[in-house]
Amino acid sequence: MRYAIIGSGAVGGLYGAMLARGGADVHFLLHSDFDHVAANGWRIDSKNGDFVLEKPNVYQRAQDMPKCDVVIIALKSTHNGLLPDILPHVLAERGAVLSLQNGLDVERDSVEAAAGHDVLGGCCFLCSNKVGPGHIHHLDYGRIVFGVYRDGDPKYDDSKGTAHAAGQSIFADMIAARIDAEWTDDLATARWRKLMWNIPFNGLSVALDASTDAIIGCPASRELADTIIREVHRGAAVCGHVIDESAIEKTMQHTETMVPYDSSMRLDFLHGRPMEVDAIFRNPLRAVAEAMQTRAESGSPKSANSVENPVHPMPSVAMLSQQLQFLDSRPRRASNLGR
Amino acid sequence: MRYAIIGSGAVGGLYGAMLARGGADVHFLLHSDFDHVAANGWRIDSKNGDFVLEKPNVYQRAQDMPKCDVVIIALKSTHNGLLPDILPHVLAERGAVLSLQNGLDVERDSVEAAAGHDVLGGCCFLCSNKVGPGHIHHLDYGRIVFGVYRDGDPKYDDSKGTAHAAGQSIFADMIAARIDAEWTDDLATARWRKLMWNIPFNGLSVALDASTDAIIGCPASRELADTIIREVHRGAAVCGHVIDESAIEKTMQHTETMVPYDSSMRLDFLHGRPMEVDAIFRNPLRAVAEAMQTRAESGSPKSANSVENPVHPMPSVAMLSQQLQFLDSRPRRASNLGR
Repeated sequence: MRYAIIGSGAVGGLYGAMLARGGADVHFLLHSDFDHVAANGWRIDSKNGDFVLEKPNVYQRAQDMPKCDVVIIALKSTHNGLLPDILPHVLAERGAVLSLQNGLDVERDSVEAAAGHDVLGGCCFLCSNKVGPGHIHHLDYGRIVFGVYRDGDPKYDDSKGTAHAAGQSIFADMIAARIDAEWTDDLATARWRKLMWNIPFNGLSVALDASTDAIIGCPASRELADTIIREVHRGAAVCGHVIDESAIEKTMQHTETMVPYDSSMRLDFLHGRPMEVDAIFRNPLRAVAEAMQTRAESGSPKSANSVENPVHPMPSVAMLSQQLQFLDSRPRRASNLGR
Repeated sequence: MRYAIIGSGAVGGLYGAMLARGGADVHFLLHSDFDHVAANGWRIDSKNGDFVLEKPNVYQRAQDMPKCDVVIIALKSTHNGLLPDILPHVLAERGAVLSLQNGLDVERDSVEAAAGHDVLGGCCFLCSNKVGPGHIHHLDYGRIVFGVYRDGDPKYDDSKGTAHAAGQSIFADMIAARIDAEWTDDLATARWRKLMWNIPFNGLSVALDASTDAIIGCPASRELADTIIREVHRGAAVCGHVIDESAIEKTMQHTETMVPYDSSMRLDFLHGRPMEVDAIFRNPLRAVAEAMQTRAESGSPKSANSVENPVHPMPSVAMLSQQLQFLDSRPRRASNLGR
């Protein structure tokens, strides 16, 4: 299968280079790193073994790329506005899109930009940073959990089975490439499971200007992180995605054993780039609000009570979102890095 | 009456100098500013008219001060640990304490350090900063609302009337000094009324690294400030202090018309000083938790419901408190000022 990698940062660069190393036909759309990667290839420093991918297929314009069976979207979701100008050029007739972006419902932009094509989504559980042009530092973890995007519709029917079939082919290529891939028939729950980490630790790392180990190391912020993890767990349940209780403790434990890590959102903030507040915060808050609304309208016994005293299932998440929107709206310079 | 002013920052310096200008016998306990004020007096730049108080009575040690009828505590509450070493030296036999500190139940330390003496408390509604040694810049507002501290006990009985009498004498001196003073028989409600401003705007000004006008100027943070104001209003009610609904809107309006202002907590943060998180956040949260506990134990109809789904009346306040505790625990330098 032929792959396009759109957005070659810490995620696209790593997985694209691994797929190519594993024998897949991979084509990278590059922006600022084009010259460097064209000359030097990809340099991957990984806890699973360093490697260099020499002479990758690289492009500056989507128009110049070949039609691909799978287009992997690894842009920041803040750049999803580019997708309508990219996807029609690189998708083969029956090509599928796989969005490896953070957050919830980030696939909607691909659905709109590639009408009629199957869209899949994946959650990447990894600590990886781009440390220089064409240079990725993969610090920890590395799993991709991916599946068919059902657009929030539990009755979604992949009747022809094409999305599922595309997923199985991708899965086989990933395994061949030694990517820690996992297929899921319930992408939405996987997304929420990942949000249990992203919402507290991306959010607090910016709001508190702190790395994960500092957040966990202070009793007050640790308790706050725990509160937020529980809220996200509850929000998922409100949306119909029941995640095992044990995930709450595991999320905290994973963060404890993780290497000290600057989340992608913190790096965006420190470098003066827009933050993925919509994808990671506002979309989940919207999903919960819609689910609450649906419940209220269905007249469940709880709703009468909740009209009088509506209980927000995720008040701390809402507050963190507002704080991030404020910080995102302020002029920033990369010089914030030194603060 | 003879007054002692303990802590001569933006509040103690301003009101102490005004009292002295009005004819009261005022004695200042000074620390870092002693030499400067001994040589140059107080310089007050006020929106109500600038003045210099020449040759004030200043002291470096409480032991050297005369016994005073009224001891005004205008220290940061983070320094209340000093009170047991100060108050016994400066309080006349029937002297009273007036705490002009931010927050809730800040008078408790005075009650303990001055057993047997009447303790009053006051809320200062003013924008005032110390801009240099002995130099106060009074930007806006200026009202003191003060009354007898009842230690959280609604049945408190000033049976001999001495606390009330002391308050009336102080009130007369304040009016003579052209201080915008107001007597209240319900100090606790006044304290909560002031917390409706202090909690959102002191807290967010640190958590968001922003002045009040920036917080109000962005829709997301403005909405968050509004949420927090409403929570404090609700928290006051839970504690039995019913504040008129109109105060919610007024708090926001006052902040809009206020000059752009760095709150005292933000200045403490930027200068690397400890912040008054206990007084302004943790004491109110504790008061609400105790009131909720009392309600639950009294078996009111709501309590059965709230065991299953306990609704925190001030979730955003709790979160902001945790964020501030985290920020307060981190090493800081005054160089944060430039960030």
